[in-house]
Amino acid sequence: MGKKHTNDSFQSGTNDGSDGRGEQDQHQREQDTSAPTPSERLPTLDERNISVLRRVGNEWRRFSGNPEVWRDALPVDPSLGTYPDHAEIRPTRFGRFVRVFLQSEPPTVEATSAAEVPPSLLGRIGYYLKRIVLGAPLKSSAIVHERMRKLVALAVLSADALSSVAYGPEAILAILVLGGSAALTYTPPIAAVIAFLMLTVGLSYRQTIRAYPHGGGSYIVASDNLGHVPGLVAAAGLLTDYILTVAVSVSSGIAAITSAIPSLAQAIVPLGVGVIVVLLAGNLRGVRQAGVIFAAPTYAFIFAIFTLVIVGLSQAAGRGFHPIPPPPLPAMEAVSVLLLLRAFASGSTAMTGIEAISNAVPAFQPVEWRNARTTLTWMVGLLIALFVGTITLIHLYGVVPNAHETILSQLAHRSFDSGFMYAFTQAATAAILLMAANTAYNDFPRVLFLLARDRYAPRTFLRMGDRLAFSNGIILLSVIATVIYVVFGGKTDLLIPLYAVGVFLAFTLSQAGMVVHWWRLRDAHWRRSLFFNAIGCLLSAIVFLTAGLTKFTEGAWVALLTIGLFILVAMRIRRHYDLAAQALALQAGVIEVPQPQRLPALVSGVEAGLAEAEETPEEIHHLVIVLVASLDRASMRALAYAASLQQPVLVLHLSSTEEDAKRFRDYWHLWGDHLPLAVIVSPYRAIVAPIVKYIEVLHWQRPDLTVTVILPEIVVRHWWHRILHGQTASQLRHALRPLPKIVVTTIPFHLPD
Amino acid sequence: MGKKHTNDSFQSGTNDGSDGRGEQDQHQREQDTSAPTPSERLPTLDERNISVLRRVGNEWRRFSGNPEVWRDALPVDPSLGTYPDHAEIRPTRFGRFVRVFLQSEPPTVEATSAAEVPPSLLGRIGYYLKRIVLGAPLKSSAIVHERMRKLVALAVLSADALSSVAYGPEAILAILVLGGSAALTYTPPIAAVIAFLMLTVGLSYRQTIRAYPHGGGSYIVASDNLGHVPGLVAAAGLLTDYILTVAVSVSSGIAAITSAIPSLAQAIVPLGVGVIVVLLAGNLRGVRQAGVIFAAPTYAFIFAIFTLVIVGLSQAAGRGFHPIPPPPLPAMEAVSVLLLLRAFASGSTAMTGIEAISNAVPAFQPVEWRNARTTLTWMVGLLIALFVGTITLIHLYGVVPNAHETILSQLAHRSFDSGFMYAFTQAATAAILLMAANTAYNDFPRVLFLLARDRYAPRTFLRMGDRLAFSNGIILLSVIATVIYVVFGGKTDLLIPLYAVGVFLAFTLSQAGMVVHWWRLRDAHWRRSLFFNAIGCLLSAIVFLTAGLTKFTEGAWVALLTIGLFILVAMRIRRHYDLAAQALALQAGVIEVPQPQRLPALVSGVEAGLAEAEETPEEIHHLVIVLVASLDRASMRALAYAASLQQPVLVLHLSSTEEDAKRFRDYWHLWGDHLPLAVIVSPYRAIVAPIVKYIEVLHWQRPDLTVTVILPEIVVRHWWHRILHGQTASQLRHALRPLPKIVVTTIPFHLPD
Repeated sequence: MGKKHTNDSFQSGTNDGSDGRGEQDQHQREQDTSAPTPSERLPTLDERNISVLRRVGNEWRRFSGNPEVWRDALPVDPSLGTYPDHAEIRPTRFGRFVRVFLQSEPPTVEATSAAEVPPSLLGRIGYYLKRIVLGAPLKSSAIVHERMRKLVALAVLSADALSSVAYGPEAILAILVLGGSAALTYTPPIAAVIAFLMLTVGLSYRQTIRAYPHGGGSYIVASDNLGHVPGLVAAAGLLTDYILTVAVSVSSGIAAITSAIPSLAQAIVPLGVGVIVVLLAGNLRGVRQAGVIFAAPTYAFIFAIFTLVIVGLSQAAGRGFHPIPPPPLPAMEAVSVLLLLRAFASGSTAMTGIEAISNAVPAFQPVEWRNARTTLTWMVGLLIALFVGTITLIHLYGVVPNAHETILSQLAHRSFDSGFMYAFTQAATAAILLMAANTAYNDFPRVLFLLARDRYAPRTFLRMGDRLAFSNGIILLSVIATVIYVVFGGKTDLLIPLYAVGVFLAFTLSQAGMVVHWWRLRDAHWRRSLFFNAIGCLLSAIVFLTAGLTKFTEGAWVALLTIGLFILVAMRIRRHYDLAAQALALQAGVIEVPQPQRLPALVSGVEAGLAEAEETPEEIHHLVIVLVASLDRASMRALAYAASLQQPVLVLHLSSTEEDAKRFRDYWHLWGDHLPLAVIVSPYRAIVAPIVKYIEVLHWQRPDLTVTVILPEIVVRHWWHRILHGQTASQLRHALRPLPKIVVTTIPFHLPD
Repeated sequence: MGKKHTNDSFQSGTNDGSDGRGEQDQHQREQDTSAPTPSERLPTLDERNISVLRRVGNEWRRFSGNPEVWRDALPVDPSLGTYPDHAEIRPTRFGRFVRVFLQSEPPTVEATSAAEVPPSLLGRIGYYLKRIVLGAPLKSSAIVHERMRKLVALAVLSADALSSVAYGPEAILAILVLGGSAALTYTPPIAAVIAFLMLTVGLSYRQTIRAYPHGGGSYIVASDNLGHVPGLVAAAGLLTDYILTVAVSVSSGIAAITSAIPSLAQAIVPLGVGVIVVLLAGNLRGVRQAGVIFAAPTYAFIFAIFTLVIVGLSQAAGRGFHPIPPPPLPAMEAVSVLLLLRAFASGSTAMTGIEAISNAVPAFQPVEWRNARTTLTWMVGLLIALFVGTITLIHLYGVVPNAHETILSQLAHRSFDSGFMYAFTQAATAAILLMAANTAYNDFPRVLFLLARDRYAPRTFLRMGDRLAFSNGIILLSVIATVIYVVFGGKTDLLIPLYAVGVFLAFTLSQAGMVVHWWRLRDAHWRRSLFFNAIGCLLSAIVFLTAGLTKFTEGAWVALLTIGLFILVAMRIRRHYDLAAQALALQAGVIEVPQPQRLPALVSGVEAGLAEAEETPEEIHHLVIVLVASLDRASMRALAYAASLQQPVLVLHLSSTEEDAKRFRDYWHLWGDHLPLAVIVSPYRAIVAPIVKYIEVLHWQRPDLTVTVILPEIVVRHWWHRILHGQTASQLRHALRPLPKIVVTTIPFHLPD
């Protein structure tokens, strides 16, 4: 992404947060748009933040004096100096050895991968199973930016687009047959329009590659040039596209297999779910995109289809290219413009994946954009050739859709009978479809990452897993795709209506963004580029509208609704993060001391943020409340802990009867009455609520106090022992959570068994 | 319970806990054996505990000096004196008013019932729904010990026993018909044996009433006289008995209804579950045992059956008492001794509930034991009369079991046709069976309470709910009974084989306990009492063995296995509580300071109990560790909090790259380097595990330190916002839980939205 693109509409959106995150966004985006950073990064501070930080630091100086004193008072060595290098420490009874290395002075220690091994036996078994499936964890520094040769890139990046030939033509026919055999004569003209569309959109994306040599996905192009909301719309289109790519490719790949082996037709759903699980595991493991193994299916598929077309044409030549008329089929509805438009919209799914190369420009060898353009040209050429070839054969052979066998399989049967070439064709089809699904596994988490970086998606999608893959996005994709696949019973034709909408929405916005881009830039060839993009935009928009309107009741409404909801949610997420950033920003010296009289504001917690503004130790005024149920060792330790903090302490005891309350007081006197005690009688036997209400009232008395509630908690070794001890401590922790300025301290007492 | 009974074998069992709980048990048991205390009580301290408490208090004196100083330093008024009496405080935006009254000086406050109302809207809706179903909460002081007149007591306490007539005779015939119609001639002799058994067991329980005027349930009698294990066996028998009483009474009651209204036969399972839900709600609401409404079904049933018998006999008199031969039925198996024994075992279920009066002696008007004995005599008389009458009619009319209609319904049809008396009989049968199920709802939680008091069951069964009912026991009974009812499809005949085993096991042990009791006591009539109890014990044992052996494969094995498992679990629970009590007991001045070299012991947490022995503030040595992810306001507040404690502080930061680590250090310098900082680089991007391991190593350096880990935590207003903020704080809290001497302090930062 060129520096020039960061100062427009997108930037304006990030400025309303007052915390300088806009700055940070820009920093990160400039650094690497296409190659995401390995994990959530430390936010970069801007000038304002730095000056506030300095000011807060100065206020601390009054309190802390010389930092050296603190350091000398430290009873442990944070650099683990006394901990022998390479020494072993057993975390638990069955623990594996964990090494923590000292790396540099001042103390920075580095965790080894063994630090991840969980302490419990079950946890460890789970951990090793995970390691067996996913492989050893990878260091952040292990991230590499691959460069692909054109021949490899063509295969890897065009799997999604070319594999569409496996279902695109069939999608056209599936609609047309509703008008009876006669309607099938409209197949060639519809296919011609789609082929023209492929050419135009391909030319349009050539312009995108030139303008975004660092990778120009639809989300980036749309949000850069058109603003947030169009960017989000494009992202929503892309995400639904990727989800459906998985569902459609898997269902179509399974159809290729069941066409060849009809006995598997019963197991469509479990087979498909199995494939998604394999894709999930493979991608969590971090499957590399490049390599011959990933190129093979694409070339095999190209070879298979070309052979099919050549053999088919030569057989047809023997008949003088006279088309075999399709079998007579009853018309379910009249041949209308609407039917033709629906067939067109369905067929346009053959174009999905055409944008892949423009996303991945940095993965090419230098000069990246030039190589990417060449590859794109080749891909579009191949796509058109395969698509037109297939449609021609279908027309010549009068093949019609069949619930048990795909059209491609029918063609292959006619050309190759059931021999090796037939099996090869079906296998190559299944393989390239699997590759196409895998492409979605690369792209879906990346879009989520970009959204999360711009704070439109949960932060968790910024995090890379053990194997440097965006595990959360990968898991989310698998779950949604599986649900959709199962709900639709793995039937490709039912999924198609949902598909085109998202893709062409993203295409349209991406091209529209490019039009704006060229209009603003006006460099050497801007007129030509703008022209191509405008045509691409217009045609994409027409397809989007056609698909959205004609397929609305068939399922497009689901896709549109999802996109709409997604945008709403994304905006809410952004708003939340902006407010959170504002609340969390340092604001040296602007603390409002709450007034004791302002009761609702304090107790309600609504304005809690304001009340929790202490930034220096001097501002913290303590009250320690210890909850004591009986005078056992766990409670005594909690009392000792509280007293040792040398802050005002109040001990709280809850009795269900006045008799018990009196008895507790007696014991308290016996002990020596060392700390102030308050007893609450709870005649209705409630425990949590009266304690919480009491603490609320104390807080109302002195809202400036930070109240530390100390809970002695019995910790048992086995989870089933928890039933024996009640959960009062965790219930209280939960109930105290929403209250402002209440700090909860849990003092564990570990039972031996 | 007489004082004399507390000094025998049971007592010896509680002495092995060194914490004086044995003392406490005795205290409680003497006070009220039959009327449980309203909730978990404050443990009573014995002499040893008191002296240890004093010693610990003396050690505190060195640290705390004058307690007055502490009290004066308190920044709030614990008696809420500045909080105006009757003033209102809004706990949250939608909060109801809550009043907390100052009750006495020194500060004791009492919570009103409004203190229980939860703050959130959903929580409040749930709370009010609960209140509508269950009624307003009751104060502990509202518990009353009812006294029943004999006529009421007879009705209330004999519902369980008398209702057995509804399924007992049928259970005999259900087995005998397997031997064909000829086998049915054995019905009268088998019934005679059972009637004799009723008489004997009744006489036996008369002795129990005399010996245990405060209520002598099987668990108490068996554990008092025979020791723990027999007590537990009896308790296990009782608990299975009560569960099956609910299942069998409900299924039998539904059968009475479906016999009258056959169209309901499809809905047996949902009807039964519905009845259990009503019983659950009614008992959670705290249904009183006494009152005319509870006496009515019993008298109605007695009236109905007597009328049935008289009408039937008078009709039979017209035929000269010639029995109508039963319809010819094919024999499924030969008439063998085994078949007769099985029929006998099944029929003995007619005796269930005979022990009810001996449990409830204190509920009678004075002189309690005398009134109770009279009532028992009446009950046994009625039971025998109803049982024998029913059997006679069955024999005279040659009635045989039928899947669609109960035998009682068949008899009623013959005597009354389908008129009002028939409907009355069926309604009275259903009603008394419902009452019998309700009896189990009173007894099951009571036995669990007694077990929990003796630490054989989770402490939670000691607690009374809002309405002074033992809610947890009631819920448990409902859940188990529902599962059994549903699994057996609500079929009475399938449930019968499980039933007799538990009942007669409890009977046997109870009578055996009485034999030992009389042998030890040797008061005025001890020989006669011992004789009756010995006979009762012997006969009960024979029935138990017969039922256990002959019904083993039919389902008795389930009951026996359950009883065995129950005993094992109860013993484990007791062991756990004993160990916990030992670990929690105060032990002034016997602290072992752990040695830094003893690595495995410290880090494993196995011997954690020993390491957590501090009882005075002087023994606590602090290290405060603050986890900081970035320098925002939440972190700064956590740093300020940590520093304000004036204890050694170490700040911990985790970076996933060295570059980020360096940047954080730079910011730290900008701030002023006020606290010692350690940075962990986690190149594998793990967060929780490296931090926990690091803290473990620090703890290994200085095992004497109490390490307080301070976690700043973002608290959001809506649960769905949690997805946006990660759960690192709660994951860390969870991971740090098993480590000894690690105190976890959560400092919340509340986001405004």
